Amino acid sequence: MSEHATDAHPVLGLIRFDANGLVPAIAQQHDTGEVLMMAWMNRESIAETLATGRVCYYSRSRGGLWRKGETSGQAQHLRDLRVDCDGDTLLLLVHQDGAACHTGRRNCFYRAARDGAVMEIAEPLVSPEALYGPGHTHG
Amino acid sequence: MSEHATDAHPVLGLIRFDANGLVPAIAQQHDTGEVLMMAWMNRESIAETLATGRVCYYSRSRGGLWRKGETSGQAQHLRDLRVDCDGDTLLLLVHQDGAACHTGRRNCFYRAARDGAVMEIAEPLVSPEALYGPGHTHG
Repeated sequence: MSEHATDAHPVLGLIRFDANGLVPAIAQQHDTGEVLMMAWMNRESIAETLATGRVCYYSRSRGGLWRKGETSGQAQHLRDLRVDCDGDTLLLLVHQDGAACHTGRRNCFYRAARDGAVMEIAEPLVSPEALYGPGHTHG
Repeated sequence: MSEHATDAHPVLGLIRFDANGLVPAIAQQHDTGEVLMMAWMNRESIAETLATGRVCYYSRSRGGLWRKGETSGQAQHLRDLRVDCDGDTLLLLVHQDGAACHTGRRNCFYRAARDGAVMEIAEPLVSPEALYGPGHTHG
């Protein structure tokens, strides 16, 4: 899709992409409020997400579109897409299938700074090997 | 504080700062789960936040520490600081005094992409002028 396509969603015009054409996107489970993860999106991944209702990010490490769950099966289903006051952050309200985190945890924020130490506050729901096989990567 | 100070919190060693020495931080109201805003932190602002319990960001536009609420009175009180699996995003569980957003809204994510349009889904709690005076900026 051309960025000048006449059918582009008007929300795209509010977003201030960074020098790499990316914007950070927070994924939140829509009903419980759990913050699941943060990843990056580009114009194409946002347009695809709005068109399909399945969340698609941009993987900086792989340099391409990252359809969340395409490898792991742990997809995110979009319920609402919001943009912040400055247009430089997105909030995605989603339904997360299974585990959002590549470690197999429900969310990525399982390490907390408490009492001068770092504590792990969540256990994996599923092993990374079960999600990705040996030598797993994000997906 | 020197970044090599022996009393540095061990969570600092888990964080992968970007090329500018910054990391994105999501602020979430600790009890309701409302995602309030996203801003940036550097090592010094994280250390200060952990030491004082008052959230301090790094303002990219002003190029310095931004003690949330120092101008507006709308401070954030830290309840928990979490780091994600990759060490490149923080989640701050906070208690937010009043409005997190410089527009006077409770949170910054008040514009939603719905039905092919952009809808404003929240009203200001307070006017920006009441927070900052005429010619308001973030604070």
